[in-house]
Amino acid sequence: MSDIWLSSLITETPQEGFDLATKMARIGVKVTQPSAEVRDKLRRDYAEDPDSLIAASQVIAINFQTVAAANNYWRD
Amino acid sequence: MSDIWLSSLITETPQEGFDLATKMARIGVKVTQPSAEVRDKLRRDYAEDPDSLIAASQVIAINFQTVAAANNYWRD
Amino acid sequence: MSDIWLSSLITETPQEGFDLATKMARIGVKVTQPSAEVRDKLRRDYAEDPDSLIAASQVIAINFQTVAAANNYWRD
Amino acid sequence: MSDIWLSSLITETPQEGFDLATKMARIGVKVTQPSAEVRDKLRRDYAEDPDSLIAASQVIAINFQTVAAANNYWRD
Amino acid sequence: MSDIWLSSLITETPQEGFDLATKMARIGVKVTQPSAEVRDKLRRDYAEDPDSLIAASQVIAINFQTVAAANNYWRD
Amino acid sequence: MSDIWLSSLITETPQEGFDLATKMARIGVKVTQPSAEVRDKLRRDYAEDPDSLIAASQVIAINFQTVAAANNYWRD
Repeated sequence: MSDIWLSSLITETPQEGFDLATKMARIGVKVTQPSAEVRDKLRRDYAEDPDSLIAASQVIAINFQTVAAANNYWRD
Repeated sequence: MSDIWLSSLITETPQEGFDLATKMARIGVKVTQPSAEVRDKLRRDYAEDPDSLIAASQVIAINFQTVAAANNYWRD
Repeated sequence: MSDIWLSSLITETPQEGFDLATKMARIGVKVTQPSAEVRDKLRRDYAEDPDSLIAASQVIAINFQTVAAANNYWRD
Repeated sequence: MSDIWLSSLITETPQEGFDLATKMARIGVKVTQPSAEVRDKLRRDYAEDPDSLIAASQVIAINFQTVAAANNYWRD
Repeated sequence: MSDIWLSSLITETPQEGFDLATKMARIGVKVTQPSAEVRDKLRRDYAEDPDSLIAASQVIAINFQTVAAANNYWRD
Repeated sequence: MSDIWLSSLITETPQEGFDLATKMARIGVKVTQPSAEVRDKLRRDYAEDPDSLIAASQVIAINFQTVAAANNYWRD
């Protein structure tokens, strides 16, 4: 995890902010399970489990709260 | 996910904000499970599982916090 | 869901705000499971499951955060 | 639930605020399961289930965020 | 729970704030399960259950949000 | 837990803030399970359980909200 993947929370649009929130949720998984091979294997399973999908959506929602606040909700 | 689905967090009314929060929760699922066919199949199951329904309501609630703050709670 | 059920987040008292938060939690379930008949049947089950009850209370708590902020915590 | 149980979020001390947050968590359960008899029975079970206890503590924590903000964190 | 355990949210350092958040998470368990004996027994179990440990860490994180805000993030 | 591990919430960059949030999530586990040996053993299991990984990512997300707010979202 030594390369730069999060240099700023500022994005052009809300949708790019949502994409960043998704990325943050994935990196949050990666710090516990660094193997891309294992993560890909697990993903095939949980992508068919509705509770896992809802839980993943929730982590994105929490990260998006942070990104949206950072961008002052793209109000301007 | 390359088309524009989230160009603004601003809505006319709280209820439209709630609808947007619901949409965000669903897109949060879609980024992990892109197949509409699989999502529709899963939905038939979890729509009958109370814990999944409560969890889905929670993701909407979290997204609604963000949308409501963006709209200054539609106070004006 | 086309009728108006959320025209404002402003309530007279904290308790009415809590009632609104409860309503929002229920609508959050309804958007995924539109059938009142199915929801009533599921409710008989989860109303006897402590974990479901705690989870439902949590969704209310999250929605209440939003309603309370909208009302400036009824401080005035 | 027609009597007044939440007339204000303001408390004298943080601890009274924590007590209020606990009460809110319990009322959040009560709105789904109105029977005191059933709730008492369920409580004997989940009070011995660590995951239920942690989940209950989480609902209190979320409600306490609201109460603490309402009281401006009892800073003055 | 009649003695004073939460007289202030203000702490000298972030780390003391984290300790306070941990204490709040534990008191949140204690209000549902007042018996220290039962809690100690349960703890031996859930301290070996990764999901319980992650859930406990989450409750601390939520309480720490409150404590950190109360202390203005120890910025000064 | 008597040594200093959290002297400040301020970090140079968002990514360092994310690393700090990860550390906070881990310390939140450590306060309940102090044995590094047990934690390492548990980690091998939950690092292959998608739901645990998503839950861990969520705790990081919650802690990151706090760190990001403390740093005024690294806007300046």
